[in-house]
Amino acid sequence: MAQTNDPVTRLNDLIKGIEFAMLITIRPNGSLHSCPMATQAADGDGVLWFLSGNNTEKVDAIKSDPRVNLAYSDSSSQRYVSITGIGELVRDQVKAKELWKPLYKKWFHKGLEDPDLILLKVQIQGAEYWDGSAGRMLRLGGFAKQP
Amino acid sequence: MAQTNDPVTRLNDLIKGIEFAMLITIRPNGSLHSCPMATQAADGDGVLWFLSGNNTEKVDAIKSDPRVNLAYSDSSSQRYVSITGIGELVRDQVKAKELWKPLYKKWFHKGLEDPDLILLKVQIQGAEYWDGSAGRMLRLGGFAKQP
Repeated sequence: MAQTNDPVTRLNDLIKGIEFAMLITIRPNGSLHSCPMATQAADGDGVLWFLSGNNTEKVDAIKSDPRVNLAYSDSSSQRYVSITGIGELVRDQVKAKELWKPLYKKWFHKGLEDPDLILLKVQIQGAEYWDGSAGRMLRLGGFAKQP
Repeated sequence: MAQTNDPVTRLNDLIKGIEFAMLITIRPNGSLHSCPMATQAADGDGVLWFLSGNNTEKVDAIKSDPRVNLAYSDSSSQRYVSITGIGELVRDQVKAKELWKPLYKKWFHKGLEDPDLILLKVQIQGAEYWDGSAGRMLRLGGFAKQP
């Protein structure tokens, strides 16, 4: 991996090729749950965007508590990445079109017009990654707000 | 996977062969973090045991808030499993010996006598798994306390 001081570029290198992240949310009853989300690269503002169904428990969870974690695992390359962030639910047709891939029709039968489709915007607060030689998670420095 | 009504057996089938789980904890400042833990099978009481370093942020997190999630991902078999539980830190030489594998010496240089070694006991409250055909997480029923 090319070394760069830009945390977003480094983060995108770390999660590249990991097909699904696990999104962790806190449900209204206080319990922690995870569910897979198709990986999207972080944008230059340190934001991760995901497409989501609106009538889901994860959306209800984020409405009641915006704290999230995204956990990326790939045992073949020994990559383990934790992203701490704040989730927000957004309706934005332009952004949805940008993120859209034909295979998503499997989940959103009506495509971009599907009324159940909503965007999940995660503002990254900090990230950590597994360092095999150190045997622990290391902080990926440089994000605006380190939690 | 053989169908059985025992949720622990079904859960162990679902996580089998996934080398590392991501353990999600809530740090004292309220932020969510994940870190890899070597997968261990759940025991008959619906408990997952892990070996952990005592001087770690995840241990500090569990001391201040015992709620955890374990996220298992395997894209090659499309297995995504979420376990909701309550963590507890325990010192138990007999149990530690039972869980010990020679490769752990990489993390605990003094082996089972390592003063930094502590056990993390996670009482499973509930579990969910990704059902590809339904396109959503399904609850794995039968655990004593469903959160």
